Amino acid sequence: MSLPPEALRYDVTPLGLHYTLSHFDIPALKPSHRLTVEGSVGRPRAFQVQELRALGEKTLRVTMECAGNGRAGMAPRYPSMPWTFGAVSTAEWTGVPLQALLDLARPASTAVEIAFHGADAGFDSGVEHRFARSLRMDEAADDVLVAWAMNGQPLAPQHGAPLRLVVPGWFGMASVKWLERIEVLERSFDGYQQLVGYRYKKQSGEKGAPVTHMKVKSLIVPPGIADWYTRRRLVERGSIEVEGRAWSGAGAAIARVEFGVDGAWRDAEVERQGARFAWQRWRAKWEAQPGEHELACRATDAGGALQPLEPDWNIGGMGNNAVQRLPVTVR
Amino acid sequence: MSLPPEALRYDVTPLGLHYTLSHFDIPALKPSHRLTVEGSVGRPRAFQVQELRALGEKTLRVTMECAGNGRAGMAPRYPSMPWTFGAVSTAEWTGVPLQALLDLARPASTAVEIAFHGADAGFDSGVEHRFARSLRMDEAADDVLVAWAMNGQPLAPQHGAPLRLVVPGWFGMASVKWLERIEVLERSFDGYQQLVGYRYKKQSGEKGAPVTHMKVKSLIVPPGIADWYTRRRLVERGSIEVEGRAWSGAGAAIARVEFGVDGAWRDAEVERQGARFAWQRWRAKWEAQPGEHELACRATDAGGALQPLEPDWNIGGMGNNAVQRLPVTVR
Repeated sequence: MSLPPEALRYDVTPLGLHYTLSHFDIPALKPSHRLTVEGSVGRPRAFQVQELRALGEKTLRVTMECAGNGRAGMAPRYPSMPWTFGAVSTAEWTGVPLQALLDLARPASTAVEIAFHGADAGFDSGVEHRFARSLRMDEAADDVLVAWAMNGQPLAPQHGAPLRLVVPGWFGMASVKWLERIEVLERSFDGYQQLVGYRYKKQSGEKGAPVTHMKVKSLIVPPGIADWYTRRRLVERGSIEVEGRAWSGAGAAIARVEFGVDGAWRDAEVERQGARFAWQRWRAKWEAQPGEHELACRATDAGGALQPLEPDWNIGGMGNNAVQRLPVTVR
Repeated sequence: MSLPPEALRYDVTPLGLHYTLSHFDIPALKPSHRLTVEGSVGRPRAFQVQELRALGEKTLRVTMECAGNGRAGMAPRYPSMPWTFGAVSTAEWTGVPLQALLDLARPASTAVEIAFHGADAGFDSGVEHRFARSLRMDEAADDVLVAWAMNGQPLAPQHGAPLRLVVPGWFGMASVKWLERIEVLERSFDGYQQLVGYRYKKQSGEKGAPVTHMKVKSLIVPPGIADWYTRRRLVERGSIEVEGRAWSGAGAAIARVEFGVDGAWRDAEVERQGARFAWQRWRAKWEAQPGEHELACRATDAGGALQPLEPDWNIGGMGNNAVQRLPVTVR
């Protein structure tokens, strides 16, 4: 499910409004579910939720976006979730740092990657598998959580109950839900979702570059009211404040947001970053004059990356961070 | 958002998985929000949530279905939410009986209807309005709640926070969210969603019959595993138990569920009704043989109503309770 655009107004997305993208059925895991840590480790381990709690607890506010968010804006469009803009949300995740589990299991010095296996099973392009993703050892060391709570409540089934991975700054596919196995590897992980599924490909058959961190992006909270079916917006004339959200991957802060009206850009006011991995609010005044208008916004992150005006097309429709354009009618 | 079919497994739909259908934006109501009771009453009143709590509290388990659930199975299809089967869920709603508010406000003896006005505003077919629905006085007397909690938690924004109506046995449009005004009327309510929106119409321009209670219906929890994009199901051969849910409107219990395999029907086992307004679980054994099969189920309620094999078409795609057919591949 998608975040309704007006719900961008909440700093933390309320329970049940956070977007979800699950490849397969929600598995029915028991409360006695055990997460194993195995592979190239000195001490294979298994943990239930309460045993993980005893290892220490950390809460991070994290903006998470689906790699396919914006796919509907790419043509030709890949036959997958036709997301427009709503596959992004922010939650407070509580869990134990992955590093604490690794410290107990003692990965071999020759380990190069860690694979995270979910309990959700199915087919994709004829390949039967459980959803699984991997991180390199250095990627796994940085603020990755094994989480059991979201917004202060036990994980809901659709968000990975009882345990999931949360990889801040990355697109959502890295944050494996229904986590049942952490496997330390002395080679690169070759699972479908790592090698085939989440890749930037320009041509069929090529390997493509891996999809990793979220790109710089911004969205508008649509002003005014909507038409039921078309969602076209109607705005009252006069001075209004338009607001929205902006974020980037890898914890990069947003340096600038520009608000566009009918192609003319001006600087918006950007709220200071409150949490390293969470989106920032932007605001701009607008003197709305009767007629048809196109609103837009574009963000630049601290690393200097700027949203493009047009999507950077790829076969799978991944990582579209092109500028949002919102037509509105002012009366 | 739609209930994922595997989530039919839960007696009470977990928070965040309950279907939602909102015509307009989720309004940003304050905790100090006041609900007024006005119109043809002896004593107009206004209530905040904590004042309603003081009037008494009741919890009901209620299965709620969108009137448009199944629209995608009707052809030609009306341009509205293309629901397949997932716009149905069950929640525990806590609130005060509507009757308690009416007793305090004292409707005129000449009152005939009560209109319920939500705070959500927008357009439909060119008509600007806030979402509103009405009930006749006798309909309003029966187990209708003004609710502030769902599954034991304060209402989430998308479910009508801070206050909503819950009308058990009716399609969901009667359960007005973001309730801000209860208006007692000495005439029939003429709001768009009452007179135009939710009607069974066979021809454009006709008034049509009002959409009221849910119809008898049943669904299958899909066995096996899914293909990511097509959702086609693959099942292991052998003896399996297939289960699902069945419900009807107006609190009618389910008398019978038949499970169909490749067109042959047999009786399923139906769980006793635990709560008057909640769905019932059904179960059937199946010896799954390799090959292509079509599973189906059909329910009969205590009033003798049976699900039809084909939809009863109407322009708006309302109230489709035709038998679900689920193709599966057994290996």
